[in-house]
Amino acid sequence: MNKHILSITCDDAQNLVHKITGVISKYGLNIINNNEFVEKEAKKFFMRTKFSGEIKETDIIKNLKEILPNDAKIKLSKTKKKKIVILATKEHHCLGDLLIRDEYDEINAEIIAVVSNHEILKNLVDKFNHPFHYVPTKGLDREEHEEKVLEILDQYNPDYLVLAKYMRILTPHFVNKWRNKIINIHHSFLPAFIGANPYRQAFNRGVKMIGATSHFVNDNLDEGPIITQEVIKVNHEYTTDNMKQAGREAEKLALAKALKLVFEEKVFISGNKTIILD
Amino acid sequence: MNKHILSITCDDAQNLVHKITGVISKYGLNIINNNEFVEKEAKKFFMRTKFSGEIKETDIIKNLKEILPNDAKIKLSKTKKKKIVILATKEHHCLGDLLIRDEYDEINAEIIAVVSNHEILKNLVDKFNHPFHYVPTKGLDREEHEEKVLEILDQYNPDYLVLAKYMRILTPHFVNKWRNKIINIHHSFLPAFIGANPYRQAFNRGVKMIGATSHFVNDNLDEGPIITQEVIKVNHEYTTDNMKQAGREAEKLALAKALKLVFEEKVFISGNKTIILD
Amino acid sequence: MNKHILSITCDDAQNLVHKITGVISKYGLNIINNNEFVEKEAKKFFMRTKFSGEIKETDIIKNLKEILPNDAKIKLSKTKKKKIVILATKEHHCLGDLLIRDEYDEINAEIIAVVSNHEILKNLVDKFNHPFHYVPTKGLDREEHEEKVLEILDQYNPDYLVLAKYMRILTPHFVNKWRNKIINIHHSFLPAFIGANPYRQAFNRGVKMIGATSHFVNDNLDEGPIITQEVIKVNHEYTTDNMKQAGREAEKLALAKALKLVFEEKVFISGNKTIILD
Amino acid sequence: MNKHILSITCDDAQNLVHKITGVISKYGLNIINNNEFVEKEAKKFFMRTKFSGEIKETDIIKNLKEILPNDAKIKLSKTKKKKIVILATKEHHCLGDLLIRDEYDEINAEIIAVVSNHEILKNLVDKFNHPFHYVPTKGLDREEHEEKVLEILDQYNPDYLVLAKYMRILTPHFVNKWRNKIINIHHSFLPAFIGANPYRQAFNRGVKMIGATSHFVNDNLDEGPIITQEVIKVNHEYTTDNMKQAGREAEKLALAKALKLVFEEKVFISGNKTIILD
Repeated sequence: MNKHILSITCDDAQNLVHKITGVISKYGLNIINNNEFVEKEAKKFFMRTKFSGEIKETDIIKNLKEILPNDAKIKLSKTKKKKIVILATKEHHCLGDLLIRDEYDEINAEIIAVVSNHEILKNLVDKFNHPFHYVPTKGLDREEHEEKVLEILDQYNPDYLVLAKYMRILTPHFVNKWRNKIINIHHSFLPAFIGANPYRQAFNRGVKMIGATSHFVNDNLDEGPIITQEVIKVNHEYTTDNMKQAGREAEKLALAKALKLVFEEKVFISGNKTIILD
Repeated sequence: MNKHILSITCDDAQNLVHKITGVISKYGLNIINNNEFVEKEAKKFFMRTKFSGEIKETDIIKNLKEILPNDAKIKLSKTKKKKIVILATKEHHCLGDLLIRDEYDEINAEIIAVVSNHEILKNLVDKFNHPFHYVPTKGLDREEHEEKVLEILDQYNPDYLVLAKYMRILTPHFVNKWRNKIINIHHSFLPAFIGANPYRQAFNRGVKMIGATSHFVNDNLDEGPIITQEVIKVNHEYTTDNMKQAGREAEKLALAKALKLVFEEKVFISGNKTIILD
Repeated sequence: MNKHILSITCDDAQNLVHKITGVISKYGLNIINNNEFVEKEAKKFFMRTKFSGEIKETDIIKNLKEILPNDAKIKLSKTKKKKIVILATKEHHCLGDLLIRDEYDEINAEIIAVVSNHEILKNLVDKFNHPFHYVPTKGLDREEHEEKVLEILDQYNPDYLVLAKYMRILTPHFVNKWRNKIINIHHSFLPAFIGANPYRQAFNRGVKMIGATSHFVNDNLDEGPIITQEVIKVNHEYTTDNMKQAGREAEKLALAKALKLVFEEKVFISGNKTIILD
Repeated sequence: MNKHILSITCDDAQNLVHKITGVISKYGLNIINNNEFVEKEAKKFFMRTKFSGEIKETDIIKNLKEILPNDAKIKLSKTKKKKIVILATKEHHCLGDLLIRDEYDEINAEIIAVVSNHEILKNLVDKFNHPFHYVPTKGLDREEHEEKVLEILDQYNPDYLVLAKYMRILTPHFVNKWRNKIINIHHSFLPAFIGANPYRQAFNRGVKMIGATSHFVNDNLDEGPIITQEVIKVNHEYTTDNMKQAGREAEKLALAKALKLVFEEKVFISGNKTIILD
């Protein structure tokens, strides 16, 4: 039997759950999971319903629109694997982790291509028989380079972009084109250690934990909605390199967890935050 | 405005959420939170709804009974503090933690008395001006001692009993009288290290983590539904005493978290497991 | 048999461990534990040795001075409980935790007094029969208020000051008088969320973990050497108040662990970092 | 400059650190790290010293033997990568993690071959160009099958065997041949859930955490010295399959950490426990 996920975001109002489940009942569908959340400050309602049954998508959405506030965003999708393109630079750890997980179907997604501004990871990607696009930056300004990357992305039309240690800053133009579709892994427990050389900063500060943050990318670098955070204990014996290695472990964990949540359509964006209906 | 919590457990069936929220809508009540879960193997439905508004309790329950399967257990309660009696023996750590939390209103409960088979904790309980009942075991068999404890409990009629390192085994008679109302903290990561001297066992086994488990008490010692578990890292430098201290930290955390969940009526018992609608 | 702790900090040099253990051997003392660390960037050597036996303190220190670099700081102390004064303001959680731990001898210290700029915690401190000094700020500028606090501290001459949510900024004059003797608990995972309203900041940023940092206090607020850090997972359902409560749990843990380490003389200060020889 | 690791295990005695560092001093070597531990119950002394310099191995060992108790085990080795053979069955997760880590030199080891009783993982191993030996069990009893595996191992003569979800029980004969050289990853937080179907057991027990344990293999299955343990929080929404996935994450972490410690010669075996001088 087909399984579907209904995601609703709208202004909060009375009896929303009753009304929405009424539409689902009317079509004789079988609810498997149901989660709601009301963000009180923003007065916004979020709901994720997983159900099984045969549906006519347009009918249901029409019915839902009639009972929901005008601003409602309704998304109805089959529980199918997401298509993703990974952007990386030189570091292998997140990419390697995702290639293995993809190979054994652990993240509810399918890697359809990898794009990089360096050639060094080609060898790793080749092992798993995915297209690898090397887009060198030499002789190109930021916009020209991005344009080449955007052309490749257009050709694949993925559901999501995953920045697996992609060390280039994206322009607002790029971010806008892929709004709410770009997931990044950041090398610190945000908002600590924004900026360059985070592990050197962490080493100098003498911290006792190293973190990593996975987040959606918006116009302001490092400020998009946080999806997951992880930390790993360190101590005074850790060199900057040891901290980097600890950071890599935290990054892998944080990114893999975030992707699983997003690809199962459990993550809603509310302003600068995420609501995770798990 | 009054806040209420509606807890429902029943056989799974079609459209339950829609029907239940229909009753709530009908009375013009305002849902604050809503959580459901279906346990597939047992085919049981669990729902916790927090709402505000003026209600006639008997009316609502009558209405809900009409739409729910016959086996439905419905509980409707004000979000008020639970009355608890703590049973302890000689160890201070969980009791001390709860006395402070109670004093500053952190666990949604009110300690109304402490009962112990030893006198040593009287001094601590006196500081916080709670009745302390010393019930010595000398010259009494298990049943006689329990009878004396049960008499004290009858006099207080608490909502829950908290075994904060109470080192006596309870008889089925006692457990039956307080079924699903007794919360224990166990000195290990269950089901490891059941039985006596768990820290000596852990030391001998050379474990790298020490755990604690909070659970409801049922007829079989150490086998009731688990509510929370905590672990703390240890290493080869830990003596048995150091492991005990680590265990105490884990026990305090696990018990405090469990009590908060239970007293906010977020914990449902399903056979030998808990469903936590948080 | 008496137990002693020898703590040495000096410039790194060849054969230091051999030379130091030579002095200990010469006096027929029995080493229980031995830890060393060399900070490569600063070229500093740190060593903590716990031993038992009868010693003539001045002899041993004289012998050690002869074999160590000129800059060596040598500290030889009995493993006795430290005397501490706690400074607090209005929040009870760290203070309450420490009062219980002190009562049952869990932190290798003895609380000899509590000082506060508010009267609200007097009731809690009285339960445990410790002197409580209320030093109101009304009508006093920062220096005048501090002077009154310093007078009280002089009267007790404690080994350490513990800032258990003391919400006043200390002047360099105060910090200098108690240099390396003041331990603070900070309401965030430093260096994130420096400054006011950290939980509001955390809520607004939508973080998925709340942290706490225990550190020595130096002249720059929030910048002293970090001793311990703790984090607790949170999610979108946490209000600012829930985040505060999670923060309180992290603060209690981080502070209690830090104090235990410091009071067992396991923490060395190296510039802006700590070396923990555990 | 060459780096060396000196590992010593012997009966505890007076002045051992002084005597051992005396030998190192005599040869003008430069100590980088130094760790000792005395297990009081067993009265055993453990020491790990990392130093740099040119050495004549036989001279140093001769000198050390003269000053150490008769039972002393002395090991002196270059800090070089260990050669390992991985044994696996059908599950990819630990193997895949190790293949990536090996490819990017993260575990201080070199995978020289993979042996399996199934053919399914050949494809994964081939990607990384390591020899894959498929040793089917069909028609062979336990001893015959093991004999074939042992022949392959003889041919490679690795430093360590890693059981990365190798689902065959080893005979005492096999274990004896590779005593203290076999590292296993066990699918639970030992000693909980020994035996078959651990995740079904965990699901039935309603645990709130899933664990994994890495340990050396000795004659009694699941009872060898524990190296690392990891846990991951789960809840009532986890199916047996979800628990398996959580278990896989814990297993990867526990095994990778354990291997790093062992391959850096930080792990000493003391009876049924490990001493980790890190």
